[in-house]
Amino acid sequence: MVTIAGPITLQAIEPYLAQVNDLFARELASDLDHVQKLSNHVERFRGKMLRPVLVFLSGLAARNSSEPLGQTHVTIATVVEMVHVATLVHDDVLDNAEIRRRGATINHLHGNEAAVLLGDLLISHAYHLCSSLDSQMASRAIGRTTNIVCEGELTQNFNRGNWALTEKTYFDIIYRKTASLIETSCRLGAWASDADAATIEALGNYGRDVGMAFQIVDDLLDIAGQQKAVGKSLGTDIEKGKLTLPMIHFLATAAPTHQQLLISLLESDAPDRIDNARQLLIPSPSMRYARNRAQQLVDQAIAAIEDLPESEIRQILMEMARFVTARES
Amino acid sequence: MVTIAGPITLQAIEPYLAQVNDLFARELASDLDHVQKLSNHVERFRGKMLRPVLVFLSGLAARNSSEPLGQTHVTIATVVEMVHVATLVHDDVLDNAEIRRRGATINHLHGNEAAVLLGDLLISHAYHLCSSLDSQMASRAIGRTTNIVCEGELTQNFNRGNWALTEKTYFDIIYRKTASLIETSCRLGAWASDADAATIEALGNYGRDVGMAFQIVDDLLDIAGQQKAVGKSLGTDIEKGKLTLPMIHFLATAAPTHQQLLISLLESDAPDRIDNARQLLIPSPSMRYARNRAQQLVDQAIAAIEDLPESEIRQILMEMARFVTARES
Repeated sequence: MVTIAGPITLQAIEPYLAQVNDLFARELASDLDHVQKLSNHVERFRGKMLRPVLVFLSGLAARNSSEPLGQTHVTIATVVEMVHVATLVHDDVLDNAEIRRRGATINHLHGNEAAVLLGDLLISHAYHLCSSLDSQMASRAIGRTTNIVCEGELTQNFNRGNWALTEKTYFDIIYRKTASLIETSCRLGAWASDADAATIEALGNYGRDVGMAFQIVDDLLDIAGQQKAVGKSLGTDIEKGKLTLPMIHFLATAAPTHQQLLISLLESDAPDRIDNARQLLIPSPSMRYARNRAQQLVDQAIAAIEDLPESEIRQILMEMARFVTARES
Repeated sequence: MVTIAGPITLQAIEPYLAQVNDLFARELASDLDHVQKLSNHVERFRGKMLRPVLVFLSGLAARNSSEPLGQTHVTIATVVEMVHVATLVHDDVLDNAEIRRRGATINHLHGNEAAVLLGDLLISHAYHLCSSLDSQMASRAIGRTTNIVCEGELTQNFNRGNWALTEKTYFDIIYRKTASLIETSCRLGAWASDADAATIEALGNYGRDVGMAFQIVDDLLDIAGQQKAVGKSLGTDIEKGKLTLPMIHFLATAAPTHQQLLISLLESDAPDRIDNARQLLIPSPSMRYARNRAQQLVDQAIAAIEDLPESEIRQILMEMARFVTARES
C-alpha cells in the first residue's frame, strides 16, 4: 500500500499505479538482452511515484464523479514517471564525476557511458509513449516542460560556486527543475478528465507550489536530515557548491565572520568541511526561514484548490501538501 | 552553396535549408543568457545538414511537381537535425572521458555536466518542435527512431572490447545508430508530401542503405583517412576498442599471427598502438572487402528509387548515393 502522504493511504489509485508499473516495463521492454538488463536496473531509481500519484488524484479531483479514470491517465502518468527517472539517471551520471576521478577503470567508463545512454533511452521512450495518445496536446506540454527542466538544470550547474546567488534565481531554478514537471502532472491529469480551464489552472498551481515546497524541504534535509532516514548521501549541495535557500539566507543575514566562514568551508577541500558547514547552518535562523517559506508555499497550494468541489480526493491532496513540510525523508 | 554531393549543387533546396537554420535558432532561443550561449555553441556541431537535405529531396522526389514544399517539411528537417546534433553532443561527452581522466578540474566538470544537459536540451527541443505539427504521426516516427538510435549506441557501448563481434551485430549497430534516422528523414519527407505507401517505402529504403554505406565509409576513414581532410581525430575506433567492418573481417580471415597482433594492439596501452594497428589494416584485403560492402549498399539504394518517376531530384539522390563511397572526408 502506498503511504506517500504519511498516514493517508491511497487505495483509490492503487490499481492505476499498478498499471503504470506494467506500462513502464512494457514500453521499455527490449529484445536486446543488454538493453533489457539496463531497463530492469532502472527499478532502483524508482521511488514513491509522486508524479503518477498526482496525475491520478488530479484526474479524480477534476472529474468529481465515481467514473473510473482511463488509459490516457495511465499513459500520462507513465510518461511523467519516465521523464522523472530519466532526470535521476542523468543526475547520477553528473554526480559520478567524483567517483570517476578517483580511478577511471574501463568498468567505470562503461558504466558512465551506459548511464548517459540509459537516460537518453528513457527520455526517448517517454516521448514515444506520449505520442501514442490521440492528441498532440500532452506531447506539447511534456516537450515544453522538459525544455524548462533542462534550463533549470543548466542554470543550477551554471551557478555552482556562485556565492552571490540570489533568492530569485534559486526560486527560478527549483521551479524549473522540480516544480514544473509536478505542475504539468497535475494539469495533464485534470486535462485528461476533460476539466475546464479554471480547474486545470487550480490543480496546476497546486502542483507548482507543492513542487516548490517539496524541493525546499529536500534542500533542508540535505543539510539537517538523518542519513539513515533520507536514504541517500547528504551534504551534497555543500559538497558541490550549490547554494540552497538556507545558505542564501545565511550569506545575506548572518554575522559577517560567519558568512565568511561558510564561504571558506564551501571553498575548502578538507574532508570535514561538509560536517562543519552543516554544524554552522543547522542552529542558525536561516533553517527556520527556509522552512517558513516552504510552509507558505504549502498554504498557497492548499488555497489553490479550495474552490474545487469538496471531495475525499481534494482532502487527500490537501493532506499531501501538508505532509511535504512534515516529512523527514 | 551546399556541395554535399560533390559536384552537385543543391540550389533547389537552398532556401529551405536557410529556413532550417532560422527555425533551429528560434526554437533554441532562451531568455537565460548562459543557456543562449550554450545554444550558440551548438553551431560547432553542425555539419553538412545531410538529414535535412534528405527530408527536402525526398519531399520533392515524392511530390514530383513544381509545387514548393511547406512548413511541415521545414519543421521535420529541423527536428531531425536537432536529434542528430543531440547525439553528437552526447557522443562528445562520452569521448571526453579521456581528457577528463588527465585532470578533472572544476572547469572540466562544469563542461561535461553542461554537455550532458545541453544534449538533453536539444533532444527536448526536438520533440517539442515536432509536437507543434498537426498530426502525431511524425512524433511517433521520431520517438520510435530515437528508441532505436539509443539501443544502437547501447549495443555499441556494450560490445566495446568484444573481439568476437560478428558482422551481423555490426550491421545491426550501424543500422540503429546511423541509418535509422536517415531512413526516417527520407520517409517523413515523403510523408509530408502526401506520398503513397510505396513511395514512402522506396525512399525509406534508399535512406537506410545510404545510411549504412555512409557509416561503413566513416569507419573506413577512421582507419585510412587523412586527418586533415576528415577534420576530426582518427583511429578513435581502435582506441576505444570498437570493432568496425574491416577489423571484423581481418579477425576472421587474416593469418592467425596477424589476427593475434591486431588484438594485442587493440588491448595495448602503448602510445603507438593506434598507428601500428592502422598500418596493419590499411594494406589488408579487409579494407577492400568493407568498401565493396558499402558499394553494394549504394547500388541497393539507387535500385530502391529506380521505380520512382524520372526527375532531376531523383537524379540528384542517385548522385548523392554514389558520392558516399567516393568521399574522402
